[in-house]
Amino acid sequence: MSNKVITISREFGSGGKYIGILVAKKLGIPCYDRDIIEKIAEESGFVDDFIKRVSEYAPSKSIFAYSFIGRSSTGESIEDKIFAIQKKVIRDLAKKGPCVIVGRSADYILEDMDTLDIFIYANMSDKIKRTMNFKAQTEKEAEKLIKETDKRRSINYKYFTGKNWGERQNYTLMLNSTELGVEKTADFIVNLYRLETE
Amino acid sequence: MSNKVITISREFGSGGKYIGILVAKKLGIPCYDRDIIEKIAEESGFVDDFIKRVSEYAPSKSIFAYSFIGRSSTGESIEDKIFAIQKKVIRDLAKKGPCVIVGRSADYILEDMDTLDIFIYANMSDKIKRTMNFKAQTEKEAEKLIKETDKRRSINYKYFTGKNWGERQNYTLMLNSTELGVEKTADFIVNLYRLETE
Repeated sequence: MSNKVITISREFGSGGKYIGILVAKKLGIPCYDRDIIEKIAEESGFVDDFIKRVSEYAPSKSIFAYSFIGRSSTGESIEDKIFAIQKKVIRDLAKKGPCVIVGRSADYILEDMDTLDIFIYANMSDKIKRTMNFKAQTEKEAEKLIKETDKRRSINYKYFTGKNWGERQNYTLMLNSTELGVEKTADFIVNLYRLETE
Repeated sequence: MSNKVITISREFGSGGKYIGILVAKKLGIPCYDRDIIEKIAEESGFVDDFIKRVSEYAPSKSIFAYSFIGRSSTGESIEDKIFAIQKKVIRDLAKKGPCVIVGRSADYILEDMDTLDIFIYANMSDKIKRTMNFKAQTEKEAEKLIKETDKRRSINYKYFTGKNWGERQNYTLMLNSTELGVEKTADFIVNLYRLETE
């Protein structure tokens, strides 16, 4: 098997994260998402005193709780520093061997490497239903959360990559998970991965 | 096999039309592109005297040579009439049985039917190379042709459907043909079609 890495970008509520986990499981390779990448970063020693100091005032215990709450107009902001750390973690993980990386603009961070860049989207009704299973009480609340999360993703992606999130040129494949369902979507990606690495 | 129809939209020079032909061949179903749809329309009797009269002045022998050269500000324009005819032809073809339809906003025209809507794109260098094989002499000429054609497709799609051409919400699958090449892209679509109709 080649050292190809699968990056998965996804609309909130599209099942993209779960699809990433399924794909990794089917291929027998690790899957890294935000939580894991943040944990590795915290344990890595990449985090400098400046970030640690700021994080003492963060409501969450994670140093990454400060991500994207504002940007300094000059110099390197806290977000820039955190992005640089996550970038280093992601590149190190990708160099280790085949894996799935969900989110974190990994398609851009690894653009000079051998990757299969996938974007998962879904119909709004499907995303609302999925979001209500675990993160929202009402349809209205779910739709608001979906829209706000994807808007933030879009802004962050633009800020760090200069490109438009969800625009086809950035991905090998864009797939509507509503049509196939998450299981078959995962099978389909596994099939593509094998076609590309055979 | 179900009566599912595959619609293929594509960037100019992405190999989408050829991929459509390959997919149809592999599945043993017919493939309809613009030329075939126009021919059927001309033979169908759907074409009324008004369009026939206008077409007498067209530089090409096809009545469709007048497509999209301008729009009347009031009433039904010649483009609207032609779109209505092609729409009728496409819906009749789709009702007959499984087939592949390339272009012609078929994803929109058949949106109430059981379709697999695919959008094929490619890297610009690849599109230029492919265009120079048959429709342009220089790279500059090829790039101009690619951009102008896709701009026109985008404008027409917006005019007739009210939606944005190439935007993920309109398709089941969007695929970069540069990565897999046309043969494997076709195999991949066949695989998806079988997954969806099994």
